[in-house]
Amino acid sequence: MHDPGAALPHVVILGGGFGGLWATRALSRASVRVTLVDCANHHLFQPLLYQVAAASLSGPDISAPLRHVVRKQRNVTVWMEAVSSIDVGARRVLTDTQGIDYDYLIVATGSTHAYFGNDGWEPFAPGLKTMDDALAIRRRILFAFEAAEREPDPLRRSEWLSFVIVGAGPTGVELAGTLAEMAHDTLPREFRRARPRDASIHLVEAGSRVLTAMPDALSTVARRKLERMHVQVHCNTRVTDIDATGVQVGDARIAARTVLWAAGVAASPLGAQLGAQCDRAGRVHVAPDLSLPGHPEVLVIGDLAHVEQDGKQVPGMAPAAKQMGAHAGKVIRARIAARAPPPFRYRDFGSLASISRSSAVVAVRGWRISGVAGWLFWLFVHIFFLISFRNRLAVMLNWGWSYLTGQRSARIIVGRDERK
Amino acid sequence: MHDPGAALPHVVILGGGFGGLWATRALSRASVRVTLVDCANHHLFQPLLYQVAAASLSGPDISAPLRHVVRKQRNVTVWMEAVSSIDVGARRVLTDTQGIDYDYLIVATGSTHAYFGNDGWEPFAPGLKTMDDALAIRRRILFAFEAAEREPDPLRRSEWLSFVIVGAGPTGVELAGTLAEMAHDTLPREFRRARPRDASIHLVEAGSRVLTAMPDALSTVARRKLERMHVQVHCNTRVTDIDATGVQVGDARIAARTVLWAAGVAASPLGAQLGAQCDRAGRVHVAPDLSLPGHPEVLVIGDLAHVEQDGKQVPGMAPAAKQMGAHAGKVIRARIAARAPPPFRYRDFGSLASISRSSAVVAVRGWRISGVAGWLFWLFVHIFFLISFRNRLAVMLNWGWSYLTGQRSARIIVGRDERK
Repeated sequence: MHDPGAALPHVVILGGGFGGLWATRALSRASVRVTLVDCANHHLFQPLLYQVAAASLSGPDISAPLRHVVRKQRNVTVWMEAVSSIDVGARRVLTDTQGIDYDYLIVATGSTHAYFGNDGWEPFAPGLKTMDDALAIRRRILFAFEAAEREPDPLRRSEWLSFVIVGAGPTGVELAGTLAEMAHDTLPREFRRARPRDASIHLVEAGSRVLTAMPDALSTVARRKLERMHVQVHCNTRVTDIDATGVQVGDARIAARTVLWAAGVAASPLGAQLGAQCDRAGRVHVAPDLSLPGHPEVLVIGDLAHVEQDGKQVPGMAPAAKQMGAHAGKVIRARIAARAPPPFRYRDFGSLASISRSSAVVAVRGWRISGVAGWLFWLFVHIFFLISFRNRLAVMLNWGWSYLTGQRSARIIVGRDERK
Repeated sequence: MHDPGAALPHVVILGGGFGGLWATRALSRASVRVTLVDCANHHLFQPLLYQVAAASLSGPDISAPLRHVVRKQRNVTVWMEAVSSIDVGARRVLTDTQGIDYDYLIVATGSTHAYFGNDGWEPFAPGLKTMDDALAIRRRILFAFEAAEREPDPLRRSEWLSFVIVGAGPTGVELAGTLAEMAHDTLPREFRRARPRDASIHLVEAGSRVLTAMPDALSTVARRKLERMHVQVHCNTRVTDIDATGVQVGDARIAARTVLWAAGVAASPLGAQLGAQCDRAGRVHVAPDLSLPGHPEVLVIGDLAHVEQDGKQVPGMAPAAKQMGAHAGKVIRARIAARAPPPFRYRDFGSLASISRSSAVVAVRGWRISGVAGWLFWLFVHIFFLISFRNRLAVMLNWGWSYLTGQRSARIIVGRDERK
C-alpha cells in the first residue's frame, strides 16, 4: 500500500480519554505517524458520566466519536480495538486482531473501579467508569423504583427504595445528590403505591469525612447539604460485605436492593505488563519526564501514572491527565529533535464537586466557593470543557429544561435487569 | 390497603405503544381503575426508531417514561412487567411476578419482526422494533465501518463496507437512505484506510417494487432517488439464506458483514393465547367493535388485531393503532353504561416515508407529494406527533444540526459487538 508517511516515526497512543486525546493533539504538527487505539469508538467526558447514570443526560450528550474529534489531524489513524498486551522489549502492541509496531508508545488506558480484593461484590455494586457502566447504573436505579411500585409487600418495597452508595469522593457525592433529587423532585406524583420520597439514600465512607481531597470546611458544607437533602451520610464506616439485598457495615446491616460503588479505582491492568514498579493501585512509577524507567520511548500518563510532586501524589483527575498528555507529546517532539525532554510539572487548579441542581463545592487556587455561586462556577467549567460545540448546546438545553421542571430527559431503561 | 377505587371496574391494558396509550387516555374520565402494563418503562415513538439506529437521534429523544406521560391521569397505575400469559376464561393476566385480575382487558402488545420460519437468520440480520434493537443495529453499522478501517485485506474490507437491507417497506427504505447518507456525507474524511464512499448498500425486496403500500408513481420516485444515492435496489429478489458473511439470493450471493432485517412482522405471541382465530401473521380476527369473539370484555387493538374494512386490511401503522386505542376506550365506556358499543371505523390518512435528509414520498388523501415538499410535510407530521414538547425541541435541534453539517449526534457504540 502506498503510504507517504510510512518512513516517519510511528507513535502509538493507547486510550482516547483526556490523556490520550491531549497527547494526540500535542503531536498535530510533529513529523510522526500517530495511531490512536481505543476499545470504544468515542471520547467520553467522564466528569459528567454520573449524569448519564442519573438519567439527566443521554450518552451522546457527553461523548463524541474519537475519529470525528481528530478528523482534521491528518497524521492520525484511529483504530477501535481492545489491546491485549504490550511487549516493550519488541516495541510491539498486540490487539485482539493484530500486532502494531511502534517507535514511541503512550500508554493512557486509565483506571477502572476496584473492589479491594472483593471482586464478588461487583455484580451487586456496579461502578461507574464507562458509558456501559452508566447505562447499567441508570437501569438499576430506574428499575428499583419500578419494582417498588409493583411490590405488594411493604418490607420488600422499602428494600427497593433503599440505595447505598459506597465511597464519598466526588462521584459518590454527586450520585447521592442527584439520586436524592430524583426521589424528591422528579418522581413523586408519578407513582401510586410506592412513595419515592420515602427512599432512603445512604452514602457510606470509610474515611472520616466526605470529599477528602477538599478542605475541611467544604467537606462540612457538602455533608450538611446532603443531609438536608435527606441523604444519610455514614463516615468512618467500612463495608464488610455486599450481596443482592444489602450491605454489611461491621455489625450493622443496611437493607438495600441497589448498591453503587464509588469507592476505589485500580489502574488498567496493562500497566503491570510494562515491567516497571507499580504502586498498590497498580499505577506505574514513571521517570520525571513521564517515561517508563529504562524505556525512554514509552510514556505512561493519566490515571495509569504514579507521579509525585512536592511530596504529594498528582491526583487522577481530568486536568492532570490533559497536562500529562500534552507533556507526553512535548517529550516525543523533543526526542525526535534530539533535545533533552523537560520534566513534567503539574499545575493544580483545584477541584470541585456538584451536590445538587443548585449547589456545588469548589476549591480552586485560594478560593473556596459553595452554594449557588459554586454551582454556577461548576456549570461554567463543565460546559466550557465539554469537547464539541454541539454537545455544549444539547447539554445546556437538557440542563435548562431539568432545572426548570425537575424532569430528566433520559429516563429510559435499555437492556434488561435480571433482578426480580 | 385502603384503596377507594377498589370497587370500580378494573381495566388492564397490555402494552404502552400507540394503541395502549391512546386507550389509556380515552379512559381518563371513565369510572374505572386502569392498570397499564408494559415490559419497557417508556413509550417509544416508533416511526423515528430508524433514526436512533442510524445514530441521528439518541434513544431518549424519541421516548418518554410511560408513567410520566400518564402522571396526571389519577386512575392509572403503571407496572413495568413482562406478561407471560393470559387466561380469558379466568379473566386473569399472569406476569413474571404476579397475577392480575381484570374486568376488561385491552391487548395492545403489537408485533415483532419475523423471519418466516428462518429464525436462524436472526443473529445475522437483526430487526428493528424496540429501543434495544435500534441500539444493536447502530452498534453493528458503526462497528462495520470501524472494522473496515483496521482491516488490511481489501477483499475483507469491502465485505465490512457492504450492507444488505432485506425488505423495502418504509423501514427498509428509510434505513437504506440514511445509511447512504452516513456513508457519503457523515463519515468521509474521518477514515484513513477505509473509504466510506465505497460502501455498497443493497436493498433487497421480494415484491416487484419498493414501498408497495404506496401508489406506483411514488414507488418509482423513491426507487430513483435511492439509486441516485448509490443504493442498489434489487426487486423481485427473494433471500434464501443469511449467514455471518452475506446473503444468498437465489443463485447469486451478496457478500456483506452487516445485514438488517426489515422484511416481515409477526403479531405478539400473546395473541395466540386468546383462543380466537388468527391470520398467518398471528393477528387476531376481532369482532366489528374490536372485541374478542365470545369475550366482549376483551379488546384487541393495534398491530395485534386483524381488521378488514372495505375489503382491505387496516395497516399496522401508528395512526391505525391510535384510532383503535381510542375506540377501545369508547367501547368500555359504552359497556359500563350498558349501551351498545359502536363498530370500529378506520379513517385512512395515507402514508409517508422519508428517503433522505431532504426527500420523502407522501400519499395523503388524494395528494401525492415527493421531493423537498414531501420531506417538509414528513418533518412537520413527525415533529407534531412526537409525544412531549421537550422531545420535539431536542429532535428539532438535532435535526437542524445534522441538516446543516451532515453530522450525527449519536454516533457512539454502547455494548459489545462480538464479530471480529
